[in-house]
Amino acid sequence: MSAVAGKDATAAEIAAAVSTGKATAASVVAAALARVATLDKTCNAFTSVVAERARATAAAVDAAIAAGRPAGPLAGVPFAVKNLIDIQGIPTLAGSKINAEHAPAAQDATLVQRLEAAGAILVGALNMGEYAYDFTGRNAHAGPSRNPRDPAHMTGGSSGGSGAAVAGGLVPLSLGSDTNGSIRVPASLCGIFGLKPTYGRLSRAGSFLFCDSLDHLGPMARSVRDLALAFDVMQGPDPRDPVCTERPPAPTLPGLDAGIAGLRIAVAGDYFERQLEPVAADAVAAVARALGASRKVVVPDAARARGCAYLITAAEAGALHLPRLRTRADDFDPETRERFMAGALTPAAWYIQAQRFRRAYRQLVLETLQDVDVLIAPATPVTAPRIDQTMMTVSGVAMPVRANLGIFTQPISFIGLPVVAAPLQRPGGLPIAVQLIAKPFDEQAALRVAHWLEGEGVCAAPTA
Amino acid sequence: MSAVAGKDATAAEIAAAVSTGKATAASVVAAALARVATLDKTCNAFTSVVAERARATAAAVDAAIAAGRPAGPLAGVPFAVKNLIDIQGIPTLAGSKINAEHAPAAQDATLVQRLEAAGAILVGALNMGEYAYDFTGRNAHAGPSRNPRDPAHMTGGSSGGSGAAVAGGLVPLSLGSDTNGSIRVPASLCGIFGLKPTYGRLSRAGSFLFCDSLDHLGPMARSVRDLALAFDVMQGPDPRDPVCTERPPAPTLPGLDAGIAGLRIAVAGDYFERQLEPVAADAVAAVARALGASRKVVVPDAARARGCAYLITAAEAGALHLPRLRTRADDFDPETRERFMAGALTPAAWYIQAQRFRRAYRQLVLETLQDVDVLIAPATPVTAPRIDQTMMTVSGVAMPVRANLGIFTQPISFIGLPVVAAPLQRPGGLPIAVQLIAKPFDEQAALRVAHWLEGEGVCAAPTA
Repeated sequence: MSAVAGKDATAAEIAAAVSTGKATAASVVAAALARVATLDKTCNAFTSVVAERARATAAAVDAAIAAGRPAGPLAGVPFAVKNLIDIQGIPTLAGSKINAEHAPAAQDATLVQRLEAAGAILVGALNMGEYAYDFTGRNAHAGPSRNPRDPAHMTGGSSGGSGAAVAGGLVPLSLGSDTNGSIRVPASLCGIFGLKPTYGRLSRAGSFLFCDSLDHLGPMARSVRDLALAFDVMQGPDPRDPVCTERPPAPTLPGLDAGIAGLRIAVAGDYFERQLEPVAADAVAAVARALGASRKVVVPDAARARGCAYLITAAEAGALHLPRLRTRADDFDPETRERFMAGALTPAAWYIQAQRFRRAYRQLVLETLQDVDVLIAPATPVTAPRIDQTMMTVSGVAMPVRANLGIFTQPISFIGLPVVAAPLQRPGGLPIAVQLIAKPFDEQAALRVAHWLEGEGVCAAPTA
Repeated sequence: MSAVAGKDATAAEIAAAVSTGKATAASVVAAALARVATLDKTCNAFTSVVAERARATAAAVDAAIAAGRPAGPLAGVPFAVKNLIDIQGIPTLAGSKINAEHAPAAQDATLVQRLEAAGAILVGALNMGEYAYDFTGRNAHAGPSRNPRDPAHMTGGSSGGSGAAVAGGLVPLSLGSDTNGSIRVPASLCGIFGLKPTYGRLSRAGSFLFCDSLDHLGPMARSVRDLALAFDVMQGPDPRDPVCTERPPAPTLPGLDAGIAGLRIAVAGDYFERQLEPVAADAVAAVARALGASRKVVVPDAARARGCAYLITAAEAGALHLPRLRTRADDFDPETRERFMAGALTPAAWYIQAQRFRRAYRQLVLETLQDVDVLIAPATPVTAPRIDQTMMTVSGVAMPVRANLGIFTQPISFIGLPVVAAPLQRPGGLPIAVQLIAKPFDEQAALRVAHWLEGEGVCAAPTA
């Protein structure tokens, strides 16, 4: 078996080997399917495996290469997607029991199409918190996804399967969604890299949304280069998605190795220094030290931003699920049902005020970041809690796990800023990540910093 | 007295005379102030006159011209603004009693600044329906604005004063706001031209909003050229307004005389052919005939769009006024109070669904208009009702006047399309306008068609 069929191979390594004939897509995919068959007994990351399709796609990729046709920058790279993203021929569960009764998706989601057009090979759909209203990775219907670093611990959520599948080496690349932190929280707890792009940057066409105003899709991987590779082929306007901006693609890969010279990097103060355990504070300090970032920038009103993010999420999700809450309440996950019901009862006046604050806050933060390119903040206040843990203590205060894993991610996605979650090397300990936050549509600044930190050995996804 | 100091002079005529020294701004403004002093006893269009400021501005314009400095494309043109637009030094009433207790505005609204930077001269603030929740021009605090064509009839609203001031020849140019039709309805009932630009096109900074999602500001005038003149100097991004698009200005004046060759013009069918009196249908037919527009285009779901526009308006306005409704209910206009209260009780789920429909409907309409440049539709179902009239009969159905004057304007502003309201010549009768609807950011297409119709004598603001 070639090295690129191994569990630690990155997407870039696989694509390089496959496109130059050093390995076949078929062998890479066969190895990935074999890993899924064994390792997923522990991870519980997959809810569907599309083995036949994957083998057929791999054969097509190999045939194209044999015929001398361009193989694409992700040639032969196996990937899997959170099960709220459409896969032709299977119902899009979005973590629910109810959606299993839906008709199979008529076509793939746009991002799946774009990844496969670049040579990548879809192998399956991934476990997630019900309807994405989750930070833990638990799911009453499919069972919890389990953290490959220690299966007694949670993956974080709601893209729990997307975190476990990549961290466990089942596939080098996955897609997740992030409304309030659902890519960044599992990236932190599983110890991998995740990119939540600018709001509107990547098409959401063909995904079962959670909260229209705040939903983002993005890649998760074990290297920053893989994030950039996947991100670049997924960019670009999509007539199927009215929210997806008309901005032309801005490739991030070409400048990825440019280093950090010229980038103005600061550390998020105040709100982002409170309510976190020492391990999270140490992670921020280590990254700041490595980057020589001594400046502190206070993002005002972050607590209020988080409250408004919650309010908008609850109201939009409640509105979306109202018909199902009326008729199928018993079929919801008990851990999400009451939250959806409460959300459906929100008065419009609260929602409207939260949206209004959102716009003002966005202006305020953009002004605050006028002379900052990348802002460092903690990704989660703690490392992965135990899988059934419902309460945690942070800075001496007891609080619910589910609601509070996202305290540092919510105020950022609230205004759609792009963020790379970058995990720290913690030999012997559970991983934890920092957020590298950039300005709208400047994903590249965050990716460059993350890539530099990876090159310096400060950040890394531990080998699977 | 020079002709350009007369009540029928257009802004273009005034600017041409003043900038070439054939008239002084001082004389033009003095004449306008004199007309306000006499004619407004009937029109009740003005709630504040800033005579001293106007004279000082006029003197400055004349001094600039005398010194050979560029006078600006609106040199010496008197204008007035709906009283929800900030005028430095006076409280911004927005048609209310409560706001009279507010501090005077610290600076002019952006659009006032831009008009004056182009040489125009602000002479006062104009009457309007309370907090803009109105289609009639009635106001319990200031009394109703009266239609200069026949003071026994209403102006339409909520920009009633803006309609009356221009139609009555008090000033050649005014600014109004349009959420659901508040520029187009008084333009139709008073018989003048009005432009509701694309949503986000003109800065709303320094205006007391009614419904953030749907509010537009725009010019009203007695000629299409005057609309284009004013619109062009008001365009451009504004750091004070986060909604105002980053689009660079796209001057409409240079191509205004290009005629209608090459423009694909159609008539709005179905919804826009029902619930209107013969006078409104005849207006559409006359304009279509003149333009040779035989094609009919059905905009689907217009009734639902109108319902959703109402819902969003009520919910946002209710949220905005909630603190005042709680403490100052008795100080509201009885004609608006209950509607604001009902709006404040809207569930978020309804509001969110309406906003979601709005986006889908926008896509649908844009697809429908793919090969149409300008769509003709009625502006109002009737000519101006009597001033105290509360019910009207349209197509044999009795319905409330206040809610239904905007049945044809609401489905269009709902998705932010630019519209010119163009009034028909109806010797001996009350005026009525048609809507000339264009695609986003193509104000020029609608202005070109309106200008051509004016040149052909089909449309015109009757001489004051």
